[in-house]
Amino acid sequence: MFALSRASVRSVSRSALRSFAAVQTADKHTLILVRHGESTWNLENKFTGWYDCPLSDKGHEEVKEAGRLIKAEGLSADIAFTSLLQRAIRTLWHVLEQTGLMWIPVHKAWELNERHYGALQGLDKQETVNKYGKDQVLVWRRSYDIPPPTVDKSSPHHPSNDPRYAGFDFPEEFTESLATTLDRVVPFWNKTVVPEIKSGKTVMIAAHGNSLRALVKHLDGIDEATIAELNIPTGTPLIYELDDNLKPIPQVGAIAPLQGRYLGDQDAIRARIEGVKNQTK
Amino acid sequence: MFALSRASVRSVSRSALRSFAAVQTADKHTLILVRHGESTWNLENKFTGWYDCPLSDKGHEEVKEAGRLIKAEGLSADIAFTSLLQRAIRTLWHVLEQTGLMWIPVHKAWELNERHYGALQGLDKQETVNKYGKDQVLVWRRSYDIPPPTVDKSSPHHPSNDPRYAGFDFPEEFTESLATTLDRVVPFWNKTVVPEIKSGKTVMIAAHGNSLRALVKHLDGIDEATIAELNIPTGTPLIYELDDNLKPIPQVGAIAPLQGRYLGDQDAIRARIEGVKNQTK
Repeated sequence: MFALSRASVRSVSRSALRSFAAVQTADKHTLILVRHGESTWNLENKFTGWYDCPLSDKGHEEVKEAGRLIKAEGLSADIAFTSLLQRAIRTLWHVLEQTGLMWIPVHKAWELNERHYGALQGLDKQETVNKYGKDQVLVWRRSYDIPPPTVDKSSPHHPSNDPRYAGFDFPEEFTESLATTLDRVVPFWNKTVVPEIKSGKTVMIAAHGNSLRALVKHLDGIDEATIAELNIPTGTPLIYELDDNLKPIPQVGAIAPLQGRYLGDQDAIRARIEGVKNQTK
Repeated sequence: MFALSRASVRSVSRSALRSFAAVQTADKHTLILVRHGESTWNLENKFTGWYDCPLSDKGHEEVKEAGRLIKAEGLSADIAFTSLLQRAIRTLWHVLEQTGLMWIPVHKAWELNERHYGALQGLDKQETVNKYGKDQVLVWRRSYDIPPPTVDKSSPHHPSNDPRYAGFDFPEEFTESLATTLDRVVPFWNKTVVPEIKSGKTVMIAAHGNSLRALVKHLDGIDEATIAELNIPTGTPLIYELDDNLKPIPQVGAIAPLQGRYLGDQDAIRARIEGVKNQTK
C-alpha cells in the first residue's frame, strides 16, 4: 500500500499520468454478470430449465434495480451476451435501458441457457419431492454431475420441438447436470466471449443460476463440491475485474469463493445467498 | 383465379401437395416493417433526427398494439434489424415480446437511423419556422435532396461526439437529406438484409420515418416527388411480400404508392396518413 502525496502528484507530468492510466486500463478487463430476476415459474415452484417463462412483476423490478446499481457505479459495457430464454433477455433489456446502453450489440446463445432439467421440467417441486423423495431430488438439484432423468423427442420439453433450437443437434435423450452445463458454457466463453474481452471490450452477460455458476467455477477455479453449494442471487450485478490472462483480480468486498464483487446492500446479499442455500435443505 | 374442388384436392398425393407448397414458399418472402411509436420529442415538437429520445407513454402503447397485430396475423420472423436509436430498438423489443420472438437475432445498425437533421436537431419546430420562415422549413422537411444546415464536430449533435458511432467516419460537416439517407439505407439493405431474405429468412425491420421511406422508395420504385410527400404512420406494421428478385408482390388492400399492406384499422390508417401530410402544410 502506498499513497501519492498531493505534491508528488503535482510533480508528475500530465502525459506520464496518462501513460500510467493507459497501462492500468490495458491490464484490467471489467466483466458484468447478472442472473435474471424472479420468473413466474419460480413463483409457481416448478422446475423451469429451458421452459421459456417470463419474469414475474417482482423480477422486472429486481432487474431494473440491477441496472440502476450498474449505472450508479459508473460502469458501462460495449457488448452483451444472453441466453435464448426470455427471462434472461428481458433482464438484459432492463439493464441496457437503465444504463443507456440499448444500442450495444447483443449476442443471444443457447450455450448461456439455464441447465436443462430433463424430465423434471414443468413438474411441481413439492410433488416431485413427494414422488421421488427429498434426498433424490436434492441429488438432482445440487449434485455436480448427476443429471435428472432425460426427455426424448416425444416431449414438448425436448429442444428439437422448439424452433429456436432449429439447426442445433441435441441428443435424442436429453438432460443436463451442472457438469455438462459447464461443458457448453466454457467453450462458448473461450470461443466467443474471450476474443471480445481481449479486443478491449467490456462485456455484460445476463444469464441463469447454473450457466453463471459454470462460468464462475471456471473463472475462480472453484472445486466441484463448493460450486454445487454456491448460490448466486437473482438480479444482483456481479462485477469481475480480469487480468490479461482472464484471471480474476480479487475485489474488495468479494464473498468467497467468488473473487468478483456484488453491487448493492452487502448484508442483504449475504442473507439472500444463505436463504437460497437453506431453501434446498 | 381458380379453386381446387375438394375432390381434386383428395386426388392429389400428399407429397405432390408438399412440393407445390414448397415452390409457393420459395417464391415469396415476407418482410415486416414497423416505424417506431411516438417519442417524447414528437410531443415536445422538436426536430429529433439522431437525438436519442425515448418513446412516449403513447408510443409504448402504440407499438405493443403493433406486436399484437403481427401476432394476430399469424406472422413470425427469423431475424430483425433496427437502428442505433432507442425509440426504434424499444419498438422492436415490444414487438418481439408481443410475438414471442425475443430470442431471434437482432442486428442494430446506424444505417437504419432516422435521417440526421443537421443544425436543426434539438430546435423547436415552431421557433424554427419563426426564424427561417415556413417555406424554408418545409423545404428542409419535405424536399428530396435539400438537407438542413450542417453541424460540425463542436456540436453535441455531431456523431463523432457519441460513443455509439465510434469507429465510423462521418463528414466533419454533417447533415442528411432523404436522398443521402437513401444512399446508406439501400446499400445496407443490399449487403446485409437481402442475403438473409435470400437464405429463406423472414425479416423484421423496426426503424424511422425517413429510413423506411428510403427503403420503400427503393422497393416500390417510387419517384422523388412522390416519396417526398409519402407518410408512413408510426407503430403500424407494413407487410410486404417479395418475389425472388426482391420485387414487391402487390398486396390486397395496399395504399398507393406502396405495394405492401398495413395491418390494423384501414380507415384509421388512411386518416393518419392524411393527418401527417396536413401537419406539414
